[in-house]
Amino acid sequence: MPVESRVRVRYKDTDQMGIAHHSNYIVWFEIGRTDLCRETGFTYRAIEERGFILVVTEIGCRYRAPYRYDDEVVIVTTVEESGSRSIRFGYELRDTTGEKLHASGFSVHFWVDRESRRPVTADAAIMAAFAPFQSQR
Amino acid sequence: MPVESRVRVRYKDTDQMGIAHHSNYIVWFEIGRTDLCRETGFTYRAIEERGFILVVTEIGCRYRAPYRYDDEVVIVTTVEESGSRSIRFGYELRDTTGEKLHASGFSVHFWVDRESRRPVTADAAIMAAFAPFQSQR
Amino acid sequence: MPVESRVRVRYKDTDQMGIAHHSNYIVWFEIGRTDLCRETGFTYRAIEERGFILVVTEIGCRYRAPYRYDDEVVIVTTVEESGSRSIRFGYELRDTTGEKLHASGFSVHFWVDRESRRPVTADAAIMAAFAPFQSQR
Amino acid sequence: MPVESRVRVRYKDTDQMGIAHHSNYIVWFEIGRTDLCRETGFTYRAIEERGFILVVTEIGCRYRAPYRYDDEVVIVTTVEESGSRSIRFGYELRDTTGEKLHASGFSVHFWVDRESRRPVTADAAIMAAFAPFQSQR
Repeated sequence: MPVESRVRVRYKDTDQMGIAHHSNYIVWFEIGRTDLCRETGFTYRAIEERGFILVVTEIGCRYRAPYRYDDEVVIVTTVEESGSRSIRFGYELRDTTGEKLHASGFSVHFWVDRESRRPVTADAAIMAAFAPFQSQR
Repeated sequence: MPVESRVRVRYKDTDQMGIAHHSNYIVWFEIGRTDLCRETGFTYRAIEERGFILVVTEIGCRYRAPYRYDDEVVIVTTVEESGSRSIRFGYELRDTTGEKLHASGFSVHFWVDRESRRPVTADAAIMAAFAPFQSQR
Repeated sequence: MPVESRVRVRYKDTDQMGIAHHSNYIVWFEIGRTDLCRETGFTYRAIEERGFILVVTEIGCRYRAPYRYDDEVVIVTTVEESGSRSIRFGYELRDTTGEKLHASGFSVHFWVDRESRRPVTADAAIMAAFAPFQSQR
Repeated sequence: MPVESRVRVRYKDTDQMGIAHHSNYIVWFEIGRTDLCRETGFTYRAIEERGFILVVTEIGCRYRAPYRYDDEVVIVTTVEESGSRSIRFGYELRDTTGEKLHASGFSVHFWVDRESRRPVTADAAIMAAFAPFQSQR
């Protein structure tokens, strides 16, 4: 059950090559996982208010085709792995037809206590909410 | 007694016009006032640790000549007005020769209590530290 | 005839004060005028392809109430003045009820020839397209 | 022969977790390779003027320890692999003592003709200039 988000390439996102700067993809990934969280019933805001933060520990992206100004970016987000201590999201960035893959990537996060900033086990309710979004592989 | 900061235009800062995007100037202003704070003896980090934050209430910028990738931006920052409740910084963005004015602007800030988020009067030590940086006019 | 745009505050947009950083407002203004251009029938992309660019010459913003992570920002954009050589846009940033004004601002732009980078007069078709969006005042 | 760059964490770079947002690391990597290019005798600006662009095809980053506002980031950049068609840079982000590793990562780029946007072989002068910066491994 992947979650789909849409975002337009802003003028600010372009660089002098005339394409969206590659660092924006990392921000689009974040939009994707924020939207996936929203779909679980726990918005990321709610997760933080519950006392957890998701700290990024690794990120990767393969760039295949550039986006240009005003293009619509379709972000397809899945949960690739979900353990009690960490979670890995996968991302595909596509065009609006869904046929063209512009980029793919992933991010790994630890569940961390918001106050102590120490790694913790996510609570059962949160874990259960993410389960349906896990991709089969 | 203006304070001078230098920053290079990053590739990320450029847009498809081939120049530094205008929103970066607002971030460069922030670098200028951060450096001015450092010169007062109260780094902005120390100001926050002392329980104050400087909340932006107004900003303005006039753009005269663009910057290009890898250009060095010289930020000249002064205190234009300093009251007990608010402070106004002025900025000039120049080239490295100091002769060419690329942009000028200002920002107005209120002193706010970090916890209550209410407007407060800055303490005397901070006020005194900023005094020498006030421009004559 | 104002044009309304909506954008969510991204995690990336927040700063350590826990609110959206003030430089994002300048990017939101750009989204507002991009959407207004789209409504005129000339997307900003089409304007550039027609050989024109809109160069920012002045910008101003008054900040009244902060936005927080995941808040929805409603951007209300109008044409405040439209001459043959320059155009001034006005912006109001509101909450989703429309009742709370978070910020207001403006930007002034010159019409510039894309190749020569010299100020020019916008063509009649473009001028006519922007006319209905001019605010009464 | 690694190249060292230094950059301060800007207020704008922080997020509501109180640390530098992870997407900034990708921009810091870019500063690192820009500075490495400068050391080769071909600034990245000169490379582009010579008719080449370096298109990012892959990026990866492991995050170990966060940076906070006003921290100084030391970027250590090397050439990990340099072929006729592609180049891979490695990055370590450290503290000013050099002892603490905050993050490590890499980026892979293709040499592309600036006009045709097609992959090309970098010219011999450029290749020779990068050779001394290749790490031993």
